[in-house]
Amino acid sequence: MRYYQAPTKQFEQILSTLDYKNDVYDQDTVRSLLETAGGWVEKNLFPTNQIGDEVGLQYKNQQVNLPNEFKSLYSQMIDNGTYSIGMPAQWGGLDAPPILVNMMMEMLSSGNLSLSTCSLLTSGAVSTIQAFGDDYLKATYLPKMVSGKYSGTMCLTESQCGTDLGMIRTKAYKKDDKYIVTGDKIWISFGEHNLTENIIHLVLARLPDAPEGVKGISLFLVPKFLEDGKENKVTCQGLEHKMGSHASPTCFMNYDNSIGYLIGEPHQGLKLMFHMMNAARLAVGVQGIGVAEIAFQTAKQFANDRRQSRAINPNRREMDFPADRIIVHPDVRRMLMTVECQIIAMRALVAYVGIVQEKGDEHLLGHLTPIIKSFCTERSTELVSESLQVLGGIGYTKDGAIEQYLRDVRITMIYEGTNGIQALDLVGRKMMKDAGATIRRIITMLREFPSDDEQTKLVLDTHAEQIEAALTWLAKNGLSDPELAAASSSDFLRLMATALMSYMWAHLIKEKDLEKLARFHQTMIAPEAILYLSRVKAGHWVT
Amino acid sequence: MRYYQAPTKQFEQILSTLDYKNDVYDQDTVRSLLETAGGWVEKNLFPTNQIGDEVGLQYKNQQVNLPNEFKSLYSQMIDNGTYSIGMPAQWGGLDAPPILVNMMMEMLSSGNLSLSTCSLLTSGAVSTIQAFGDDYLKATYLPKMVSGKYSGTMCLTESQCGTDLGMIRTKAYKKDDKYIVTGDKIWISFGEHNLTENIIHLVLARLPDAPEGVKGISLFLVPKFLEDGKENKVTCQGLEHKMGSHASPTCFMNYDNSIGYLIGEPHQGLKLMFHMMNAARLAVGVQGIGVAEIAFQTAKQFANDRRQSRAINPNRREMDFPADRIIVHPDVRRMLMTVECQIIAMRALVAYVGIVQEKGDEHLLGHLTPIIKSFCTERSTELVSESLQVLGGIGYTKDGAIEQYLRDVRITMIYEGTNGIQALDLVGRKMMKDAGATIRRIITMLREFPSDDEQTKLVLDTHAEQIEAALTWLAKNGLSDPELAAASSSDFLRLMATALMSYMWAHLIKEKDLEKLARFHQTMIAPEAILYLSRVKAGHWVT
Repeated sequence: MRYYQAPTKQFEQILSTLDYKNDVYDQDTVRSLLETAGGWVEKNLFPTNQIGDEVGLQYKNQQVNLPNEFKSLYSQMIDNGTYSIGMPAQWGGLDAPPILVNMMMEMLSSGNLSLSTCSLLTSGAVSTIQAFGDDYLKATYLPKMVSGKYSGTMCLTESQCGTDLGMIRTKAYKKDDKYIVTGDKIWISFGEHNLTENIIHLVLARLPDAPEGVKGISLFLVPKFLEDGKENKVTCQGLEHKMGSHASPTCFMNYDNSIGYLIGEPHQGLKLMFHMMNAARLAVGVQGIGVAEIAFQTAKQFANDRRQSRAINPNRREMDFPADRIIVHPDVRRMLMTVECQIIAMRALVAYVGIVQEKGDEHLLGHLTPIIKSFCTERSTELVSESLQVLGGIGYTKDGAIEQYLRDVRITMIYEGTNGIQALDLVGRKMMKDAGATIRRIITMLREFPSDDEQTKLVLDTHAEQIEAALTWLAKNGLSDPELAAASSSDFLRLMATALMSYMWAHLIKEKDLEKLARFHQTMIAPEAILYLSRVKAGHWVT
Repeated sequence: MRYYQAPTKQFEQILSTLDYKNDVYDQDTVRSLLETAGGWVEKNLFPTNQIGDEVGLQYKNQQVNLPNEFKSLYSQMIDNGTYSIGMPAQWGGLDAPPILVNMMMEMLSSGNLSLSTCSLLTSGAVSTIQAFGDDYLKATYLPKMVSGKYSGTMCLTESQCGTDLGMIRTKAYKKDDKYIVTGDKIWISFGEHNLTENIIHLVLARLPDAPEGVKGISLFLVPKFLEDGKENKVTCQGLEHKMGSHASPTCFMNYDNSIGYLIGEPHQGLKLMFHMMNAARLAVGVQGIGVAEIAFQTAKQFANDRRQSRAINPNRREMDFPADRIIVHPDVRRMLMTVECQIIAMRALVAYVGIVQEKGDEHLLGHLTPIIKSFCTERSTELVSESLQVLGGIGYTKDGAIEQYLRDVRITMIYEGTNGIQALDLVGRKMMKDAGATIRRIITMLREFPSDDEQTKLVLDTHAEQIEAALTWLAKNGLSDPELAAASSSDFLRLMATALMSYMWAHLIKEKDLEKLARFHQTMIAPEAILYLSRVKAGHWVT
């Protein structure tokens, strides 16, 4: 049952369809990187996925041990470059373009969602220290984090505040040139583990003179061990018992007069955390796609192997066997195509975002980030469930593997900000910031996409009209009554996402081998936008 | 976190809205039955739900032990009548009308999905023996099954055949006035357990002279112990390791020259099994709703307790607290209303079906059964996931309880025939049998529903048109190319289900306290039908 083939060929197809070019990372370098990493995920990382789920974590005396196999895997990740692929070259990273980093993250997530989270968090911490840390912090911590000797975390949540960071109670005060940090944090992924020598926590806390609410939080770097080797009173007090993602420790952390270093300016912690979180949010969207992909591959393989009943179509019958492969049955094909056409569109959208990241198009990136985090994780969870359905009863057992993927993927809709929060970020923050200008840019992109294909033009034009109608409704109702805008935000995000998926298919439909899936998407999935538009307009029943 | 309140008040509201009357079970009897059962589920059954999940089953020497608490619960179910409520009075059952039996099943499933399956299967076996067994079998087994001394199973699946029962290999031959049955069966729920003295297996097997395929299977009653107390070589060889429903044993059974009794005529097994399965399919749809209800209650309670951020609407702010209850946030309200309005509609639809069962309206029942099995389990699974989302991170942990409900409920989309099979049953069998007459009856029901409410009329008329369009498409395309009909079947079923949910809301909208949820359903959920219709028409991309 368990099997994974890295989608390297499709990555290359997408890169070529999007006409992606990079002087340093030319076509050969890209192919070679993807193939090496893909092969390693197939042969080494993926086989640990089940072990992580079944063996899980050991917690004892404030120590967290991962399954034995994970230590060597972690070293392999470092050695083969999949760990530091997106990290700055200045400190030893590969500094690869985001489009490649995202593809790597998809494969890591297919191979082992839990372990991919460790690399995701360290990357985010590295990027934040690089952008906002002083020279001492950079020189001291970045080489060791990039080389994988140290890992990183992000410590936001406390028991009384998850979404509402204004209520943070963790405190810090200045002492000489350092800070003393005290407080409890929950939900800290990889807050404690035995893969690295040291763990570098980026912790949100309040200074004594801090203004109330989110304007009064500052960001501190708090290492588990100080550079002189001393313990810094950073301890893991327990682990959460979760539905899935069993090899990713979710820690209850305590900081007891621990020494910390301020990153950036006082009271600017939220801005810095958003820097880190935005990268993490994109990566979580990609994690969803990675798990959907492995579930899809499992379902497709099953549908090719399992024989039940005769094909309706006599040309599809194999009369030498007592029954036909279930992939010949239209309802099974429908399920598999539903899954595949959406994974491909999401994968292409993530590649497209990689190009947006590389161009530094901040407004567009700001809009696409919550869309990808929310839609790709929600949709991927649904697609994993659909893939499970293809296996019937076997899908519900440990033997079918997909039940693990469904338990694992469900967290992606929650962490790094629940999907509802993403929608509020899109409608209440990103769109307000530029008064809808980026949304109108997207409408124009849809309208002006060059295509000779009439159905493609029709689908994109329809989406453009739908978004325009939603935008008009929001301008008319949401500005005067922000509750209405909030009530409609999740469905507005889904509308945008559906249009963007069609936009990606407009590119990919030119590939002969994908045309059928493109048509399937145009007729079976794209019409969802009608529903989302009518829901946007019905927000008044919520308030 | 863990809490359940039986929806007895809403059951009564639905009974009165549907103007349900029964001479024997008058209003007072019904209220008293529901309240007694509801109270018992709240206080006794529900508290075992987590135990079942965490303790699970013990398998040793072919014996299966349920958690200790389950033995006394099982006796309580017998004593308070929830077990035998739908069973024939002739053998000691309560013979209650189906509408009440369905309500009881919903509460049992909220309280403990695993244990509800035991009662579901025994009821089905009793009904099959009662309808098709000879006098000896009835007199010998029914009193003990109805009194709960014996339980029942249905044994269809073998490793090479789940959906495709034509490939069954289990064999039987006649010896004197009995039969000798030999073979292996998989996925047998409650095939072995320690709750009852004896277990009565209804087993599909082939006689020596049987025609090939499904026309050659016969149904046998094979007890674990013979009436003289001797073992009958019926053994459990192992258990499946499942995602959820951990206290419901899913057994690998072996029959080794076991003595069996033919039920009904030779080679008529499939017809008999369908009798049993149809009742079970309805009940599984109800199981889904039961789990959705307990997840919803958990989410609603959490949203009332948890405080994060300030309400957008100043009138909803409680300034004595550092933050407001999250139930004031529009996106949280949207999630809760999405869940609640659909649970109510499904619950009402199940009550409606209860009346159809009581009237013996076989065609309508035949159509509604696959719709309820498929749609209510699929939708309930989605609603459990939406409820989990309300809890954020806590929802993903054992503390939040809903992660168990999500793991549990996922099986309902699979067992008693996967949801895809239900759709094929509707489109390929039930609709073909009466050439669409029942579907046209439903169209008329929608059109002629008496209502003074314009929006209600509009919603129902729109659904009538949508179904008509789908029916026309199926007649034009599906008859000439059955692959197209099969490709469209799942979305046709969803279209029918959505229309029926609106139909139930057309009844319930008259209740003042439900009007807002009714409007929410009309504007947020009913438009899904547009999507399903366009998918029905797009079936050609699948084939």
